[in-house]
Amino acid sequence: MPEFNHRYEHIDDNMFKVEINLDDMTPEMIGHLMDRLFAVGANDVYYTPIYMKKNRPAVLLTLLCSADVLPVVKKHLFVETTTFGLRYYPISVHRLERSFISLSTPWGDITVKQAFHQGKLVEQSPEFEECARAAQAADIPLKDIYQYIWAALQN
Amino acid sequence: MPEFNHRYEHIDDNMFKVEINLDDMTPEMIGHLMDRLFAVGANDVYYTPIYMKKNRPAVLLTLLCSADVLPVVKKHLFVETTTFGLRYYPISVHRLERSFISLSTPWGDITVKQAFHQGKLVEQSPEFEECARAAQAADIPLKDIYQYIWAALQN
Amino acid sequence: MPEFNHRYEHIDDNMFKVEINLDDMTPEMIGHLMDRLFAVGANDVYYTPIYMKKNRPAVLLTLLCSADVLPVVKKHLFVETTTFGLRYYPISVHRLERSFISLSTPWGDITVKQAFHQGKLVEQSPEFEECARAAQAADIPLKDIYQYIWAALQN
Amino acid sequence: MPEFNHRYEHIDDNMFKVEINLDDMTPEMIGHLMDRLFAVGANDVYYTPIYMKKNRPAVLLTLLCSADVLPVVKKHLFVETTTFGLRYYPISVHRLERSFISLSTPWGDITVKQAFHQGKLVEQSPEFEECARAAQAADIPLKDIYQYIWAALQN
Amino acid sequence: MPEFNHRYEHIDDNMFKVEINLDDMTPEMIGHLMDRLFAVGANDVYYTPIYMKKNRPAVLLTLLCSADVLPVVKKHLFVETTTFGLRYYPISVHRLERSFISLSTPWGDITVKQAFHQGKLVEQSPEFEECARAAQAADIPLKDIYQYIWAALQN
Amino acid sequence: MPEFNHRYEHIDDNMFKVEINLDDMTPEMIGHLMDRLFAVGANDVYYTPIYMKKNRPAVLLTLLCSADVLPVVKKHLFVETTTFGLRYYPISVHRLERSFISLSTPWGDITVKQAFHQGKLVEQSPEFEECARAAQAADIPLKDIYQYIWAALQN
Repeated sequence: MPEFNHRYEHIDDNMFKVEINLDDMTPEMIGHLMDRLFAVGANDVYYTPIYMKKNRPAVLLTLLCSADVLPVVKKHLFVETTTFGLRYYPISVHRLERSFISLSTPWGDITVKQAFHQGKLVEQSPEFEECARAAQAADIPLKDIYQYIWAALQN
Repeated sequence: MPEFNHRYEHIDDNMFKVEINLDDMTPEMIGHLMDRLFAVGANDVYYTPIYMKKNRPAVLLTLLCSADVLPVVKKHLFVETTTFGLRYYPISVHRLERSFISLSTPWGDITVKQAFHQGKLVEQSPEFEECARAAQAADIPLKDIYQYIWAALQN
Repeated sequence: MPEFNHRYEHIDDNMFKVEINLDDMTPEMIGHLMDRLFAVGANDVYYTPIYMKKNRPAVLLTLLCSADVLPVVKKHLFVETTTFGLRYYPISVHRLERSFISLSTPWGDITVKQAFHQGKLVEQSPEFEECARAAQAADIPLKDIYQYIWAALQN
Repeated sequence: MPEFNHRYEHIDDNMFKVEINLDDMTPEMIGHLMDRLFAVGANDVYYTPIYMKKNRPAVLLTLLCSADVLPVVKKHLFVETTTFGLRYYPISVHRLERSFISLSTPWGDITVKQAFHQGKLVEQSPEFEECARAAQAADIPLKDIYQYIWAALQN
Repeated sequence: MPEFNHRYEHIDDNMFKVEINLDDMTPEMIGHLMDRLFAVGANDVYYTPIYMKKNRPAVLLTLLCSADVLPVVKKHLFVETTTFGLRYYPISVHRLERSFISLSTPWGDITVKQAFHQGKLVEQSPEFEECARAAQAADIPLKDIYQYIWAALQN
Repeated sequence: MPEFNHRYEHIDDNMFKVEINLDDMTPEMIGHLMDRLFAVGANDVYYTPIYMKKNRPAVLLTLLCSADVLPVVKKHLFVETTTFGLRYYPISVHRLERSFISLSTPWGDITVKQAFHQGKLVEQSPEFEECARAAQAADIPLKDIYQYIWAALQN
């Protein structure tokens, strides 16, 4: 998976931002759409509340994808949404070097993702899903898991 | 029209706020609904973007109405929206004393609404629709009309 | 499940709306919280984007619950969020009479929920999850399922 | 009207997105502006709530227009808004092939817009304004009109 | 300051929520208003983006205050905003027991606020302003200060 | 300061829009970040509420900057936020000719910024901070200052 395994910091000029204004789909259907778009290769999908003409409280669907999956993403959007058109434009993505460490905790090992900018460590981020599962398994607040990990990373 | 012609400052304890979370109506239909609700006696209707479960970018419909129109407002909401329930609670509305003056302008007379708190003038507000019509008729920016009126009110 | 099986239209005056302004939890953690709150008995949970002091793009957590689960809901909020206080107030909920029918479709039976106001049918709503599963199983757009069902309900 | 009468599916690389951050116009005036911008040739106009410095709950005005109307759109924005600058960038718009059919209903004929992607029908959309007028004339809920049409389109 | 020095967990039934829909003030002025309202005794002030009639991207001003400052808060709202009316309703606020500890850090002492629910520690929160000042003085990222403190609180 | 002292109307093609989706920073920290970004040379910084996967009520950070400060802006974003990547794309900025006049008022001189499009005066804007200081010093509503100035500019 190219998005999550970058050995070197780099700038990717081969990405697109795709947008659709949605005013005739229900929130239920728009919510359902999100996972489908990740499944066909979108890197990010997010919704923004907007106001369109005639007092319509509508939704702007935005996604990012690489040039090579753009055609399949478009096809899914045309088939699964109600839109008659979509817009897109190229963007540059600057991605940091990433590496992964494993941290031993009372609730099992948790992966921590590290980011490096120009060779310097600038961010450490526990994998959210592993923390959430650990919190659920141990039936403790998620914030307790995070605070333990932040402490361990300091020491 | 009781809402716009208050001779005396007063507190109205006979009002309700009514709310519905909408996640299975389209923005088109929600936009259409607004005028209908004003027509049956709602004093204010507004929409707030909210996030509901399952990634749904939904809409909170809120309206204010007096106790006597609450039953007809409810009936319209049940018939025209997709909801299976609605919620409401009493609120107090503190309304200022209002009076109206007429201001002569190069584009005709414009009504200015004045508000008084404890007998003191605290706000003057040109009637928006009259200004908008004047701007359209004269084909000039709306902000020019407003600035003329504010100047006239100062002098 | 009292929320989803109302034989008669009624007004429930035994409900509360609970609110917390969140400015020191991450969106990741706030997202995680939603399912936990449904699990302990909240009827509705939703998030509203708000702006707090010091340029903070914060989140208003709102939930509805009955009086009897209010204590356990509060406890969870105090333990799982970062808040030092929460607010709440009583609301009335007007719920329609509900019944369920089963509709035969090419993708299997789908439940349709019906709502009645003063004895008159005012809304029919296919169960979203059943439709979503059918769409996934058949690998067709969700909107095709909905349109089939709406047509069947007309005929 | 080129936007609504596309015989062939095509990609239009001759479009611009124009944006202004508005923090010193009132919502009343911003609302009024929308129709004016459609009138001078904007294809889409929408507003997004944003937060600017100093705790300002501001509005991002966005519009799409073709290169040939960009100068007149800019001129209107400079004259009618309070801005000292605006930004824009080119976008591509992928528009589906469109055709129109007429559907006979108990409330008169209603136009239905059809969209085709790579020659395959992917969307059918009743004209909102015709449905809204029919609902108003017959004094029935708009959702009843839509459900009738969706049923007719299935059969 | 009663809001920030609660020795005992308690429920305060003497609070009000006050609301105004603002569609004829600029975001600049609305931003300016916030500090003024805190200064006259509001406990919380926040803004919510809403959509009002005629395509207005407006703002809902909400504040919480105790019954004894309600009159002065109202007066300020009437004088400083453009509104002709405001609404309010009583709420209950459940506040946790609070205490303060001082934590020694490489950047000086930092106060940490602790919250107790039914006698059990449920939250520890470094004072934001002290951390922000420390980050600025040391010219390091704020997140480094926070992570140091969370680690120290764990140990 | 190039942004505020344009002798001639011009189009600047040397600008970038930079964006980050933030779902693991707290609103407190995001609010703190804004001033830091202005300090390192961003022309505009604003936040937009968005909805990301897993029910996350997140924030889109957007800023505009010139090509020459892009590297330092990026560095600050990588160090001060939690992101592992950021995106950007070139935009054109059309800036009006600006000049400044000084207006004598009962509360001292106030600067008014004027904008010219194709040589024609299209906007006059009192400096917000000067007005806010005057209002505070004289302890009068800010709207009174603005209305005085608008009147003076008309006469």
